[in-house]
Amino acid sequence: MILPVIMAGGSGSRLWPLSRQLFPKQFLTLTGEHSMLQTTALRLSGIEHQAPVVICNEEHRFSVAEQFRANNIKNSGIILEPVGRNTAPAIALAALNAVKGGEDPLLLVLAADHVIKDEAAFCASVEKAAAHAASGKLVTFGIVPTAPETGYGYIKRGDTVTANNGAESGFVVNEFVEKPDLATAEKYLASGEFYWNSGMFLFKASSYLAELKSHSPDIYAACEKAMAEIHPDQDFIRVDKEAFEACPDDSVDYAVMEKTSSAVVVPMDCGWSDVGSWSALWDIEDKDSDGNVFKGDVLSTNSKNTYVNAQEKLVAIVGLDDVVVVETKDAILVAKKSQVQDVKTIVNQLKAEERPEFQIHREVYRPWGKYDSVDNGERFQVKRITVKPGAKLSVQMHHHRAEHWIVVSGTALVQNGDKEILLTENQSTYIPIGVVHALENPGKLDLELIEVQSGSYLGEDDIVRFEDRYGRVK
Amino acid sequence: MILPVIMAGGSGSRLWPLSRQLFPKQFLTLTGEHSMLQTTALRLSGIEHQAPVVICNEEHRFSVAEQFRANNIKNSGIILEPVGRNTAPAIALAALNAVKGGEDPLLLVLAADHVIKDEAAFCASVEKAAAHAASGKLVTFGIVPTAPETGYGYIKRGDTVTANNGAESGFVVNEFVEKPDLATAEKYLASGEFYWNSGMFLFKASSYLAELKSHSPDIYAACEKAMAEIHPDQDFIRVDKEAFEACPDDSVDYAVMEKTSSAVVVPMDCGWSDVGSWSALWDIEDKDSDGNVFKGDVLSTNSKNTYVNAQEKLVAIVGLDDVVVVETKDAILVAKKSQVQDVKTIVNQLKAEERPEFQIHREVYRPWGKYDSVDNGERFQVKRITVKPGAKLSVQMHHHRAEHWIVVSGTALVQNGDKEILLTENQSTYIPIGVVHALENPGKLDLELIEVQSGSYLGEDDIVRFEDRYGRVK
Repeated sequence: MILPVIMAGGSGSRLWPLSRQLFPKQFLTLTGEHSMLQTTALRLSGIEHQAPVVICNEEHRFSVAEQFRANNIKNSGIILEPVGRNTAPAIALAALNAVKGGEDPLLLVLAADHVIKDEAAFCASVEKAAAHAASGKLVTFGIVPTAPETGYGYIKRGDTVTANNGAESGFVVNEFVEKPDLATAEKYLASGEFYWNSGMFLFKASSYLAELKSHSPDIYAACEKAMAEIHPDQDFIRVDKEAFEACPDDSVDYAVMEKTSSAVVVPMDCGWSDVGSWSALWDIEDKDSDGNVFKGDVLSTNSKNTYVNAQEKLVAIVGLDDVVVVETKDAILVAKKSQVQDVKTIVNQLKAEERPEFQIHREVYRPWGKYDSVDNGERFQVKRITVKPGAKLSVQMHHHRAEHWIVVSGTALVQNGDKEILLTENQSTYIPIGVVHALENPGKLDLELIEVQSGSYLGEDDIVRFEDRYGRVK
Repeated sequence: MILPVIMAGGSGSRLWPLSRQLFPKQFLTLTGEHSMLQTTALRLSGIEHQAPVVICNEEHRFSVAEQFRANNIKNSGIILEPVGRNTAPAIALAALNAVKGGEDPLLLVLAADHVIKDEAAFCASVEKAAAHAASGKLVTFGIVPTAPETGYGYIKRGDTVTANNGAESGFVVNEFVEKPDLATAEKYLASGEFYWNSGMFLFKASSYLAELKSHSPDIYAACEKAMAEIHPDQDFIRVDKEAFEACPDDSVDYAVMEKTSSAVVVPMDCGWSDVGSWSALWDIEDKDSDGNVFKGDVLSTNSKNTYVNAQEKLVAIVGLDDVVVVETKDAILVAKKSQVQDVKTIVNQLKAEERPEFQIHREVYRPWGKYDSVDNGERFQVKRITVKPGAKLSVQMHHHRAEHWIVVSGTALVQNGDKEILLTENQSTYIPIGVVHALENPGKLDLELIEVQSGSYLGEDDIVRFEDRYGRVK
C-alpha cells in the first residue's frame, strides 16, 4: 500500500508578493481552482493509496488543516516540524511514524508546491516505481527534460534495473549532478541520459530508515529521539522540539540517495515544473496570441509576453514586453521577466527592515476563519472578520483597545462581559477596554462582521487569552 | 492693475490613474507640496495683482473652492462653465465679468496645470508684457524652446515691437504653427525665431473683447448673453446655461490670436512644461543617479530611468528600464515610458465600460470634507468619513440602507430622527432605514468616523436631501 508523504515545509520567497513567510507557495492557487497543496493531494486519485501524511512547519499548521478541510480531503496526520531541517529529517519523521504500528508502507514522497500537467503520466510512473520500491530499492523520479534548464539538478542514468516482478522501467543512478551551465545542460538534453531531479521519491519506510541509519546515523538518531514521545493535538503530530532542533540539516539527496547503492531512477514525463519563479509560472500558463497571461482585472494595450496577476484592483498596462506585474492588497511587484530571481533581493530587504509585507498578507488566516485590515488611522483600525460556521475565537480581553462589532452577514453569538447576546445582520455591540469577550458563529453560513478598534495601542499582541479551542492558550 | 484669470477647466486623462474626470490634473500635487492650481496662484506673489478669477467646470467647483480655502489664497470669484467650450469663450466670460463694473484690468490668462520652475523669469516676462498690453496689444507668451519638442505648437516671431513706454521686449507674431515633425522642430530650435505656444496671455479685457467681437462675433454674442444675468451662489458665478451651451467651441488662438493684427509675442524662459504625460513629468523631476524618480513607498533593485508614484501601498520594482508605475487606491498603471500617450486608450476603454476608475478616485472630495470606501461586500459597505471643522453634511434620508457611525477622532453633532446627540471618540450611533439624519462637526479639529452601511442597495444616489448648506437641494 502506498502512503503519500506530502512535504509542505517550504517558505519560499521567490513568488513574493503572492507568497509570504506565513502563506508560502504551497498554499497559493496559481493555476486551476485549487491550491498547490490541494492539487498535490487530489492528483493522487489515480493511485491506490492511504490518506496522505503532511509534514509542515508548526507555523503553517492551521493553513494545512484548513486546506484539507475545505476540500474534504482526508489526511492521516499532519507532522509539525518545530524548525526546518531540510528533507532527510522530514522524511525520517514520516517513515518512523509510518512504521510505529508495525506496518511498512511504500512512502510516496511529494513536494506540495510542484505543478504536474499530465496526471495520468504521473500515476503511471508511480505504478512502475512501486515494483522497484517493493523490491527494496529507493526510487527517485527523474523528469524527462524538455529544455536545457540551468535551474535544476540532473540525474544521470546507468544500466536498466529489473525489479523482482520482472519490470524493467528503472535505471541505476550513475550520478547526481548539480545545476549545470547552459552548454552543459544542452549536452545533457541531447544525450537522452539525463533527467531533472524532481525531489519526488518512492521507497519502503523500512528501506529508507535502514539506509539513513547506515549513511547518516546522526539524523536517524535525532529523528528517532524526536519521535519517541509525540504529542497529539487534534490532527497534529508534535515531535520533541529539543531533539529535532539537534538534528543535522541535510537533504535526502546528500544524506541518502547519493550514498546508497540501492538508488533507482524511474523516468516521469508529465509536464512538471517546480514553479520556482514568476517567469517559470508564465512558462507553464496558457497564453493569449501576444504571449500574455492575465489573471484578475487587467486592461492591456500593445503589450506582449507579460504576466499580470491582479488580486484586488484594476491593473492597466501599456506597451510592456517581458514584464511581470503582481498586485496584492498591500504590495505590488513590477519586474523584468528575465530578472525575477532578484525578487529575493526585495524580500531580503523587507525582512531586514522587519516589514510586515515580508511575513503576512493584509488578509490573515486563523483557525476560526480570517481577518482583513481594511483601514487604519492614528488611534483606530478597521477589520473585516470572517468566522466559519461553528467556529469560535478565543475568549479574550484587551488592555489598550475598545472594539465595536457590526454584523454585516450571518449570525454572531457574542459573550460581552457577563452577557451573552445573539446578533444578526445590521446589529452591533460595543466591547469596552478590559472586558472579557468571545465571538462565535453558531450558524450554517459564514459570519462577517466589521470591527472598529479604538485605542492608543492596536497591535495584535495586546490580547489576553482565557480559553481557546485551537490550543493557543499556554 | 493685473487681474489673473486662471483657467482650470481641464479634465485631461493623460495622467490617469492619478487624474480622474472629477479630479483632474490641476488639482494634483505632482511636484512640491501644493497642487498645480495652488501653485499657479502662489506663483503670482512676485507680481502686483488683484485676487485671481478662476474659470472651471461646474462639477469641479468644490475642489477649486477648497484648494483656495486650504491655503488661505483669496480669489475674486469662481466662474462656472455649465459645459466646456474651449478657451475663447472661457476668457470672454472672465473679460465680461471684469468690465461689468466699468473697470478695464489687464487680464493675465494662465492655465492651472502647467509647471514653471523659474518663477522670477515668469514674473519678469509678465512685467515686460504689461507695457505692450497697456498699449492695446494682445500678448501671447512664447516659451524659449530647450528641445525639438513635437508635442507643442510653435509661434514664429517677426520684427521687434515697441510699446508705448518705449520698451522693446516683444515681437510681431509672424505665424502660429501646428505641432511639427521632429526634423521641422529641429530647424525651429536652431533658427532661434520660434517659441513654444504656452497658452498664457496678457491683454486688457476691453482689447480682448473688441478683437473677439470683430473676429468671432458668434462667441462674443453667446458669452454676452450668458453673462447678462448671472446667478451668484457663495463665491461661484453661474452663467446662463442655455446661452453658453449655444456658444461655438473654439480656442483663443483660432478665434482671436491668429486673426488679430494686434498680436505680440513676449518670450519667456522659465523652465516651463505643460506636463502633458507621465514621461513629461519624469522629464522635469529631479532624478537619482540611475535616472529614477520615486514617490512614496518604493523599493527598487537594478532599475533605471523609471518613474514610480506609490500613493497607497508598497511598490517594488526589479530590473525595469524606461517604465512608469503609478499606484492609486483602486487602479494601477504600468506603462513603457515611450508609450505613455496610449494611456488615453485605457481611459477611453474605462469610459466606454462606464467604470468608476475613469471618473472618480476611491477617495472622493465633498464640500464638507471627503469619504473613502475602504471595504464593501454583498450587502454592506464601509466608509471612512472626514468632516472639516464647522462643516455639515446635508440633512438626508436613505430608502435602502441603514448606517452605523463610529467616531474614531474628533466630535460629531448628530441628528438622528428627533434626537440630537453629541458623539466623541469611541462612541457610536445607529441610523435605521428611512430615518432623517444629519452629521456636523462642531469642533476645531477634523472629525473622522467609520460608517458601516447595510442594505440591499448601496448606491450614492439613494439619498433624499432635505436641507443643504452647499446648495445641493434643488
